[in-house]
Amino acid sequence: MNEKKRILTGERPTGRLHIGHYVGSLANRVKLQYEYDTFITIADIQALTTHFEKPEVLQKAVYDVVLDNLSVGIDPEVSTLFVQSQIPQIAELTIFYSMLITVNVLRHNPTIKTEAIQYGYKDLSYWFLGYPVSQAADITFCKANLIPVGEDQIPHIEVARKLVKRFNALYKPVLIEPEVLLGDCPRLIGLDGNAKMGKSLNNAIYLSDPEEEINNKVKSAITDPGNYILGCFN
Amino acid sequence: MNEKKRILTGERPTGRLHIGHYVGSLANRVKLQYEYDTFITIADIQALTTHFEKPEVLQKAVYDVVLDNLSVGIDPEVSTLFVQSQIPQIAELTIFYSMLITVNVLRHNPTIKTEAIQYGYKDLSYWFLGYPVSQAADITFCKANLIPVGEDQIPHIEVARKLVKRFNALYKPVLIEPEVLLGDCPRLIGLDGNAKMGKSLNNAIYLSDPEEEINNKVKSAITDPGNYILGCFN
Repeated sequence: MNEKKRILTGERPTGRLHIGHYVGSLANRVKLQYEYDTFITIADIQALTTHFEKPEVLQKAVYDVVLDNLSVGIDPEVSTLFVQSQIPQIAELTIFYSMLITVNVLRHNPTIKTEAIQYGYKDLSYWFLGYPVSQAADITFCKANLIPVGEDQIPHIEVARKLVKRFNALYKPVLIEPEVLLGDCPRLIGLDGNAKMGKSLNNAIYLSDPEEEINNKVKSAITDPGNYILGCFN
Repeated sequence: MNEKKRILTGERPTGRLHIGHYVGSLANRVKLQYEYDTFITIADIQALTTHFEKPEVLQKAVYDVVLDNLSVGIDPEVSTLFVQSQIPQIAELTIFYSMLITVNVLRHNPTIKTEAIQYGYKDLSYWFLGYPVSQAADITFCKANLIPVGEDQIPHIEVARKLVKRFNALYKPVLIEPEVLLGDCPRLIGLDGNAKMGKSLNNAIYLSDPEEEINNKVKSAITDPGNYILGCFN
């Protein structure tokens, strides 16, 4: 019998992964997979939230993100990778959980508020308001015990815990209440000196970049001999 | 090839059907089934909206509502009866449509507002706010052309039409834009003289009542020789 606790982690497949992802989560994930029973979601429905106008980008990115995970050492014999859209039970659970949480609780979720501002959504889509409900379905369908997240994601895990408590009390105690596995989630500075390496900032080294491109990108990177840039973040 | 247009109709299975349902919709449905390709949903997930604390009531009512439909002349060789919760694609479509409509559009839906007051929900559940999105999934998954409804349901069909237009424009024109088939939906007065016959009002004759009970109920019904009661509604 498998005595290991289960973790759920994963990515929204919106493009290839870069070394910022590696430093921030993948490197840790590779280690965690030997300690925990690891489930990795390729969260393509979640990615539609911001990319619903470009489903073709996501279709390709699903494959790329799996390859990027394998390339850094995720072992498919050890970890379970799955594509969110291929599990209709997640959609069904999302519907059931939707009845157990109010609009007002979701509106006051600080992470939703921050992200809505970040993405420039003045008028939230119905889905965006409720995506923590769908995350609760991701977590509970696979009976995950622990969710490795950064601090900004804690309010979402709280939503999941509330829904689990409510569901278990109303029906039968069948759902596992997930807990936060708080990590450092270190952030890699961009090639241009920007505080964050990111695809949209065009300042990233991708895991799939050919060697020559990596060499060129490293040569072009802003250096910081006087510790001015990094000084900003100390 | 079947040239008939398709209609979608159905019930929330919250208990046995009574003669108010018969007069208001079932009698018409029995006729419509020969004119249209008729799909009848037993909307058990929809029923959970108001009965999420009593799933055992709904489990029994699913069977009862099917029997009540058959008892009045719905022919399973002619019409297609289905149980909403058994079609995971409806949940999946609901998720996809959720991205194509805003919270504000749903909040301003006049039928949602009225029903929320009627059910006494000051703090709406996330599901309740969005149930017209789920109805759009019911309608479109089975490619219904026409929806027989009363006037109060027109705003919901408008939501479905909006979502279909948006989806077809964004992706491919695969969804059928549903139209309203406006019926009279006559309302049967209750045995107690109340304007409406209803289960919760305890003033109904059920389709499944034994003959003796029907006789007793009819004998107990308030009569209106002076046309005082009916006069109220003219």
